[in-house]
Amino acid sequence: MLIDGTAYRSIWLGEDGVSVDIIDQRKLPWSFQIASLKTSDDAARAIYEMSVRGAGLIGATAAYGMFLAALECSEAKDDNSFDAAFAAHGEKLKASRPTAVNLSWAVSRQLSEVAPISGGMAKVAKAKEVATLIADEDVEWCRKIGFHGLPLIRKIFETKGGSKPVNILTHCNAGWLAFVDYGSATSPIYAAHDAGIPVHVWVDETRPRNQGARLTAWELGKHGVPHRVIVDNAGGHLMQQGMVDLVITGTDRTTYTGDVANKIGTYLKALAAKDNSIPFYVALPSSTFDWNASDGLSDIPIEERGGEEINRIGGAPDPVLSSDSEIEVTVVARGSAVANYAFDVTPRHLVTGLITERGICSATEAGIKKLFPEK
Amino acid sequence: MLIDGTAYRSIWLGEDGVSVDIIDQRKLPWSFQIASLKTSDDAARAIYEMSVRGAGLIGATAAYGMFLAALECSEAKDDNSFDAAFAAHGEKLKASRPTAVNLSWAVSRQLSEVAPISGGMAKVAKAKEVATLIADEDVEWCRKIGFHGLPLIRKIFETKGGSKPVNILTHCNAGWLAFVDYGSATSPIYAAHDAGIPVHVWVDETRPRNQGARLTAWELGKHGVPHRVIVDNAGGHLMQQGMVDLVITGTDRTTYTGDVANKIGTYLKALAAKDNSIPFYVALPSSTFDWNASDGLSDIPIEERGGEEINRIGGAPDPVLSSDSEIEVTVVARGSAVANYAFDVTPRHLVTGLITERGICSATEAGIKKLFPEK
Repeated sequence: MLIDGTAYRSIWLGEDGVSVDIIDQRKLPWSFQIASLKTSDDAARAIYEMSVRGAGLIGATAAYGMFLAALECSEAKDDNSFDAAFAAHGEKLKASRPTAVNLSWAVSRQLSEVAPISGGMAKVAKAKEVATLIADEDVEWCRKIGFHGLPLIRKIFETKGGSKPVNILTHCNAGWLAFVDYGSATSPIYAAHDAGIPVHVWVDETRPRNQGARLTAWELGKHGVPHRVIVDNAGGHLMQQGMVDLVITGTDRTTYTGDVANKIGTYLKALAAKDNSIPFYVALPSSTFDWNASDGLSDIPIEERGGEEINRIGGAPDPVLSSDSEIEVTVVARGSAVANYAFDVTPRHLVTGLITERGICSATEAGIKKLFPEK
Repeated sequence: MLIDGTAYRSIWLGEDGVSVDIIDQRKLPWSFQIASLKTSDDAARAIYEMSVRGAGLIGATAAYGMFLAALECSEAKDDNSFDAAFAAHGEKLKASRPTAVNLSWAVSRQLSEVAPISGGMAKVAKAKEVATLIADEDVEWCRKIGFHGLPLIRKIFETKGGSKPVNILTHCNAGWLAFVDYGSATSPIYAAHDAGIPVHVWVDETRPRNQGARLTAWELGKHGVPHRVIVDNAGGHLMQQGMVDLVITGTDRTTYTGDVANKIGTYLKALAAKDNSIPFYVALPSSTFDWNASDGLSDIPIEERGGEEINRIGGAPDPVLSSDSEIEVTVVARGSAVANYAFDVTPRHLVTGLITERGICSATEAGIKKLFPEK
């Protein structure tokens, strides 16, 4: 997507052809810094330290990390030595963020594609091809989510008389920074904006890590999409007052029956949407379906994270307007305990539909299987 | 309530008998500082600058401020001069925070009680008596809310088998810091804790001003009530997982038909409570009823506040453990617009009951009129 008029992806092959460039998302939104990954260790660290985050981007970074690993293995004395060393790099990358499904999927795909090839440089070429393919696939799936979601927004625009902006609420960051491009929840929004349909996005701040206020707001702003940041408490009031036409969120895992695990707080917005008859859509590439989980509330484990995310908030010290240094403040009374659950589950009956790369389906086993009959 | 074993109110007559002491709530929770109000100007400033806040406490501060005003008028040459000067002080106090209903109510009550009295010192004595009465009434109403709410908590405790703690979720600060003592939502909680019933409170952080993380957490901690602070996004998940037995909130204004205006985000918790069959109670002294408003969603104006509350968060810089200096950080991407709605309305059908100083009633016109037939 655009950053001040220039098109970017969240990860790309370096100009020298033997390194990989990323946007260091830890520095956003205060500073836009590109970091260069030169080894698979660099890639593992970028994932572990969350310079990159988001399911799609973690998968793509792992895929590119395996290309860097192949370069490091290219002078191995024979194919067997290469494969053994290459697999060890894969294990290290998988361990960098063990809960992300896309990560192990990307590593496994590289291993199985590279193994049959003979010769160091040929293996390297294959790893580069696979990494590029995984990134391009991610882009294409997200682009198609936008293609399939666009008519939803267009229809609301027309229903409202064809001049007033469509007000869309989103939670957390399911934007292009979480994928390679377009994003999931944001893809239909970008598609509508680029098609000339006026949209206005309510961006949930998304405590505790504030991915909405930091990343989604930054993304939308850089691409020129009108938006306003609100606290996570505000969405219900806006819906009651007719100020929200549509809700679109992403998801970290969706059962094959349509239950949606996503950033904590998503469930509350789904309840409010239902109570006010506002459509609530979840956008996801098919890689986010869990084909083994049938009941979201019992089958999806909810990660409990460290209390420092509740106790402390990082931000930019003013009046330095473009400082890249962030400082933290304590925001909870000292001595008070905290609890930090990272996700919640929105039951399928609150979800109007799922927007996938193959089209929109109901959040039901039948609806999902109709789009993905091979699963 | 107790602060480290010592009983406090949020406002009291100074030891010298001619000043008023308050807890400077702007400094909480990082520093506990008592401030002395010596003139009605001091009282107006304490309200305006939010050293005191919360409906009940604003009313009590205005009442005490009128006592300080009476002292300033005591050497007037006659009763008429006294009354004119006294009324001018009242206008100034009323202007310090014009939206708080309790403020003008307390000033008017002082004016009408003091006017018939003759002689400067006699008028001062009357103003002191009325201020004390208003504060004591606030305490008594809140204490009774605790008395009437306690059986709700006791019953849940017994239903759970008589040993496991009762998990209560609250939003914002409707604690003793918002009144003169006990609080509204917290009063049944303190009553249960003091009666030996184990309670555990989920404290919503309550963005944007974080009254939960700052004030409610501090209050509960100082009184020794077990609690954990959570982000505003978390309550729905906790309710789905059976980790909340009861929700109690306060209210800024409740219609005579039972619609509840309260801090933004309350509605979302009420929806989640309903969806999970968890009782959702609202605690209020009768002074918070609006006897003229019948439809909360259309009759109660929702204040839109400044964007800096969204953009900036104040907190304690670490590692200074008891610093009284607070610093602020910017938490929203620069250039992004924000919106800041301060309250929302929870429709009566989501409210299990209202806990008042006269007992518990349904959130309906019939239920409320039965408890307050004179209205």
